[in-house]
Amino acid sequence: MAEINVGMVGYAFMGKAHSNAWRQAPHFFPGIPRPRLKAICGRTRIAVEHAATELGWESTETDWRRLVERKDIDVVDIVTPGDSHAEIAIAAAQAGKHVICEKPLANSLAEARAMVAAAETAGVRNMVMFNYRRVPAIALAQRLIAEGRLGRIFHYRAQYLQDWIVDPKFPRVWRLDKTVAGSGALGDLGAHIADLALYLVGPVQRVFAVTATMIEERPLPDKRDTLAPVTVDDCAAFIGTIGQATAAFEVTRLAPGRKNYLAFEVNGSRGSLRFNLERLNELEFYDRTLPEPAQGWNNIMVTDGGHPYISHWWPAGHVLGYEHTFINAVADFLAAVAAKGEVHPSFAEGAMTNAVLDAVERSAQSGTWESVAAERRRSAS
Amino acid sequence: MAEINVGMVGYAFMGKAHSNAWRQAPHFFPGIPRPRLKAICGRTRIAVEHAATELGWESTETDWRRLVERKDIDVVDIVTPGDSHAEIAIAAAQAGKHVICEKPLANSLAEARAMVAAAETAGVRNMVMFNYRRVPAIALAQRLIAEGRLGRIFHYRAQYLQDWIVDPKFPRVWRLDKTVAGSGALGDLGAHIADLALYLVGPVQRVFAVTATMIEERPLPDKRDTLAPVTVDDCAAFIGTIGQATAAFEVTRLAPGRKNYLAFEVNGSRGSLRFNLERLNELEFYDRTLPEPAQGWNNIMVTDGGHPYISHWWPAGHVLGYEHTFINAVADFLAAVAAKGEVHPSFAEGAMTNAVLDAVERSAQSGTWESVAAERRRSAS
Amino acid sequence: MAEINVGMVGYAFMGKAHSNAWRQAPHFFPGIPRPRLKAICGRTRIAVEHAATELGWESTETDWRRLVERKDIDVVDIVTPGDSHAEIAIAAAQAGKHVICEKPLANSLAEARAMVAAAETAGVRNMVMFNYRRVPAIALAQRLIAEGRLGRIFHYRAQYLQDWIVDPKFPRVWRLDKTVAGSGALGDLGAHIADLALYLVGPVQRVFAVTATMIEERPLPDKRDTLAPVTVDDCAAFIGTIGQATAAFEVTRLAPGRKNYLAFEVNGSRGSLRFNLERLNELEFYDRTLPEPAQGWNNIMVTDGGHPYISHWWPAGHVLGYEHTFINAVADFLAAVAAKGEVHPSFAEGAMTNAVLDAVERSAQSGTWESVAAERRRSAS
Amino acid sequence: MAEINVGMVGYAFMGKAHSNAWRQAPHFFPGIPRPRLKAICGRTRIAVEHAATELGWESTETDWRRLVERKDIDVVDIVTPGDSHAEIAIAAAQAGKHVICEKPLANSLAEARAMVAAAETAGVRNMVMFNYRRVPAIALAQRLIAEGRLGRIFHYRAQYLQDWIVDPKFPRVWRLDKTVAGSGALGDLGAHIADLALYLVGPVQRVFAVTATMIEERPLPDKRDTLAPVTVDDCAAFIGTIGQATAAFEVTRLAPGRKNYLAFEVNGSRGSLRFNLERLNELEFYDRTLPEPAQGWNNIMVTDGGHPYISHWWPAGHVLGYEHTFINAVADFLAAVAAKGEVHPSFAEGAMTNAVLDAVERSAQSGTWESVAAERRRSAS
Repeated sequence: MAEINVGMVGYAFMGKAHSNAWRQAPHFFPGIPRPRLKAICGRTRIAVEHAATELGWESTETDWRRLVERKDIDVVDIVTPGDSHAEIAIAAAQAGKHVICEKPLANSLAEARAMVAAAETAGVRNMVMFNYRRVPAIALAQRLIAEGRLGRIFHYRAQYLQDWIVDPKFPRVWRLDKTVAGSGALGDLGAHIADLALYLVGPVQRVFAVTATMIEERPLPDKRDTLAPVTVDDCAAFIGTIGQATAAFEVTRLAPGRKNYLAFEVNGSRGSLRFNLERLNELEFYDRTLPEPAQGWNNIMVTDGGHPYISHWWPAGHVLGYEHTFINAVADFLAAVAAKGEVHPSFAEGAMTNAVLDAVERSAQSGTWESVAAERRRSAS
Repeated sequence: MAEINVGMVGYAFMGKAHSNAWRQAPHFFPGIPRPRLKAICGRTRIAVEHAATELGWESTETDWRRLVERKDIDVVDIVTPGDSHAEIAIAAAQAGKHVICEKPLANSLAEARAMVAAAETAGVRNMVMFNYRRVPAIALAQRLIAEGRLGRIFHYRAQYLQDWIVDPKFPRVWRLDKTVAGSGALGDLGAHIADLALYLVGPVQRVFAVTATMIEERPLPDKRDTLAPVTVDDCAAFIGTIGQATAAFEVTRLAPGRKNYLAFEVNGSRGSLRFNLERLNELEFYDRTLPEPAQGWNNIMVTDGGHPYISHWWPAGHVLGYEHTFINAVADFLAAVAAKGEVHPSFAEGAMTNAVLDAVERSAQSGTWESVAAERRRSAS
Repeated sequence: MAEINVGMVGYAFMGKAHSNAWRQAPHFFPGIPRPRLKAICGRTRIAVEHAATELGWESTETDWRRLVERKDIDVVDIVTPGDSHAEIAIAAAQAGKHVICEKPLANSLAEARAMVAAAETAGVRNMVMFNYRRVPAIALAQRLIAEGRLGRIFHYRAQYLQDWIVDPKFPRVWRLDKTVAGSGALGDLGAHIADLALYLVGPVQRVFAVTATMIEERPLPDKRDTLAPVTVDDCAAFIGTIGQATAAFEVTRLAPGRKNYLAFEVNGSRGSLRFNLERLNELEFYDRTLPEPAQGWNNIMVTDGGHPYISHWWPAGHVLGYEHTFINAVADFLAAVAAKGEVHPSFAEGAMTNAVLDAVERSAQSGTWESVAAERRRSAS
Repeated sequence: MAEINVGMVGYAFMGKAHSNAWRQAPHFFPGIPRPRLKAICGRTRIAVEHAATELGWESTETDWRRLVERKDIDVVDIVTPGDSHAEIAIAAAQAGKHVICEKPLANSLAEARAMVAAAETAGVRNMVMFNYRRVPAIALAQRLIAEGRLGRIFHYRAQYLQDWIVDPKFPRVWRLDKTVAGSGALGDLGAHIADLALYLVGPVQRVFAVTATMIEERPLPDKRDTLAPVTVDDCAAFIGTIGQATAAFEVTRLAPGRKNYLAFEVNGSRGSLRFNLERLNELEFYDRTLPEPAQGWNNIMVTDGGHPYISHWWPAGHVLGYEHTFINAVADFLAAVAAKGEVHPSFAEGAMTNAVLDAVERSAQSGTWESVAAERRRSAS
């Protein structure tokens, strides 16, 4: 399989990021099959044709069902809002396509489970695009934890803070509409730090949560003098347990100065790790097993050839950016398609994060601890 | 009143910090009455005499009741463990002494309330030593918030992380014994960040909390081959509301590399502030009202003459340390004694933090939201 | 001119970076002419064919003279070692091609001048690839200085520190051979910070310099048991004057932990700027004109839409990396070709930096101040 | 010798810092002889009496010759401007007093040598107050280098940047008058980083330098409408050699935002160290001998009990400030007096730094390399 044909549904911000990944992967990961950007799908013909030109796709569709059925498509990549993920992904899997889906996997746990079932029944490769697992520094963090360098885990704490809707005049875009987006900061930002909890230290078992909508009305995007209600959360804070460890999470879109600040810290009996997406080339590691007095927070510039993914990129110190996470991800996916192997996070793992979000929403309603439904982690592939 | 005579009960770590403050204050705050380090009290004669020499006290007592009754004492400073705060402070107030008490004010809300009542009835100056209010950077943060520079407050988040008991062989000292210490990380560390919430953004109304003891047994300090149960929390995480804002708190003594990491961030509609005690001379301020594209996290070195307390200290950039917070605090206290004025945080404010801790403990038991009892903020002085 | 045909000579590290730039530019700068990666040239057929596939070029040449003469080539991009820059660039210009040349422009000032003359005579667009001018944060720094935000300039200081040859067993590669590389850290790293001095604050007039080769022999790359002399500098330090300002420069390849640490600071009467390439999305600005006490080092995350180049990339806080500097540069070049406009740094500006390097080398020999030859800054285009 | 009687000449900024040190040392270093603040000397009776009260001295003198001759004085501490150091120190030594002298040791190398000779002839303890050697992080740096943790030293680079005279209306105080201050930024700031070079990596052998006075006239302090010439340098940059290593130095008082920014970096074959006085509790250590991929800049919070001086202070993470450097220094001095032992930096070492400053001034005149006179490092005690 020298080439893999890709069709993508959607073409907004995430479409730009995914398209770039498909274009770039073969140049930096020469050993994997070459993806061919076969078709892009959007509802508006003019817009999708413009996108095809700009993003580098060979053809267009305006109905995702047609795209999903095309014989010349091997992989369907879904970058639409969350309310359409399930329908498209299930149809694609049933058509025998391998599927990548933007995060969160679905707007509800029920949908997510249906997607897992469809993908597993079809036996296709499936991945939910929690792209930050492919930040080299985060992959290194995972490796260090897996090697036992932190010992017994005591704490995971993570924040994902942004500020793009602080201005009350910022319009009520689709991400602020529950029927389309499912949730607000919770599903958009909380999903990432819940997935990283899973990736780094394991599944959350129960949560307690609070969510809030602090700016309750905003102007409509296309009708600025009309206010419409914001139907999703602006922020969420939740506490959880992961085995014997505690986990603390906070997300918001109302933190001035925090542009894309995903930060986590893990504390264990042998050491600690911390990370911040705004300085994504760096990982800080405190190793209690080093001889004093040279213990400290070791700021590792994760750009050396021996670090995850870096051998494909630039020399040490020549830093990577946001978009590389997607390129690394699709490269892994293409390799998995070729090898008929596993790729993570699978839909099953994506559903585990949906289960966390689901428990968070229940807890925010009930005001008590809520258990996280115990999804199966691995597909029975 | 040219001189104020001070008597101190206790002489361990906090005794060293308070003694230093009493000695140093007159040299850096020449306008205030001079404190005279009249008497220090401890149960063991040899030890207290040694402490008196080392810490600079003129005389000793071995019974705090005698110290409290001495005619030549104007101020009683209590630096004992929390289980004796109430008894000593109430006796001191009843004897007409002004009182400073180490934090948290008491091991229980009931005791704290009794202390407030005693101090107010007696009409004496009273302050609980939440010394971090006197970090110049934190005082500046408070001033900026009070001036409205952050606008409407959306979020307060704070952590206080340490690592001194990560080693399971670290002994079960008094701070790990509930009957003496009242609680663990919660009362020791959580009290500080709860007080700073009060100082910076206002009183917490309700909380949800989890606490945990992760290392359940430790060797006795004087009998290393005997394990004793740890009866206090190693860590706590709690979520609260402050008016319409959310508040997220986490404290632990099990975070390797975090030596004395008290950090907070406040997000408001006009900007944000963040602070970290390990770099206590710095305050970061994001001002959304500055013209783009020069908005950023403005790292203010809080060592200029115009900054709180700094005119008493060194030139710009000549940084202060931990101990200066106590000196600034006793200087304010001495000035209040002289002026018969207010000083903060009063016992009444200290009781408000006890009310938060009380609600946290109830919530950790009940697994639901618990209201914080509404203490009166100001003494009816 | 809807398409511009590019031919590239060379395909090592810089060839990878330039190829990526040509491929990516049209997707992120849709308004400019589309570059077509027409031909790549290298001496070894198998290797160049492999490179063509991996890097995305349509055809290959093994003799740069043939490439330069091809009718279907509009732009020649030179990424070979410095000893061949002049010959290729002059031939390309004489053939009427627009030329981009890797930095430093040439291994000698005489060669650089000949290149300027050839390009100007031919009237072709010409640019030397000092790619760091296209770091958005550096472009913002330049804008702030040009707007007078720093006032009168007092100081420019810059370091460019790396560590890739600290190990004495690291082989004597071509960059350590004077006949090919011209110089060592000086031409490789010093050229960048000299160009940034020019860009930010103006031309250096005189210099005093020291250079050193600290590891004098190294194994040959292909014959590890044979030591060969290192004939270039490992490091250089030089002091200069820029009008009434002082300038301090230091470069080395022997600074453990400094991976690609290009840092500068500019101090002026109204404020200061500082930058560090390992955190290239950030610019720190100290503005003395802000009201105290809110003056501080303002850490600007240079990822907002209003910042240079960013409107072409990702949302705020979604950081860029090393490779984007090249993409921004070729986009500017393509626009200049289309508009028959100026593009910087021109060969004439590149020659100004060669003049600085030339004076540095003379000073390192003479042990006294040496004047920098006064090149013309602008082509007479 | 249970008590040591100290007399101090001068009482401005440095007098405040030294007085604090004498007062505080016995409380934190209980094993050393107790200093008694016997007498303080200043020319103006009212002012010196005020200072005595504020700073804690028992008696006053208005003629330093009387102080030096007092039988009840063991140690003379000189905190006057540099033009009077030699005369006072020599008289004090001849009177058999131990001597501490503020830095730089003298305004000229000749004076410094005379001071060394006098102190050595008299056989008294002598120390020049380069207080930054007693920053725990710097003492740790010295220890790590002495242990060989950096291997062969390649580079020392240091800056000392301030901004207190950026405003051209800042008056022409005594520090800007060559007859009193000797030099400007060079002697005030450059002396510190030259002494640290000596302390950390060894004596400078030769230098090349440039100095400049950028604001040439300023108002007189007491007559604001009269401008007077600034007769000292505002800034200096110099390059030197230390054995086979290179050294780069820069000092200025015209760097907005740099309040008290003394920073250095040392690069060696096995690793690097860096430090910044504005974060004086931290030392960054890059250890090339650690296994990749966990190499990084290890930020050591130098507040643990095993770190230099810290056992006398507070628990880990409870940070120290500027003034502690003086306390640590006088504690070492008192211990040396008691033990009749060595204490550093001695006058002889102080003279080595004067020799560097002397060569810098000659080089700034001559425009060529100048040798640093080879002073004897150790007193023949």
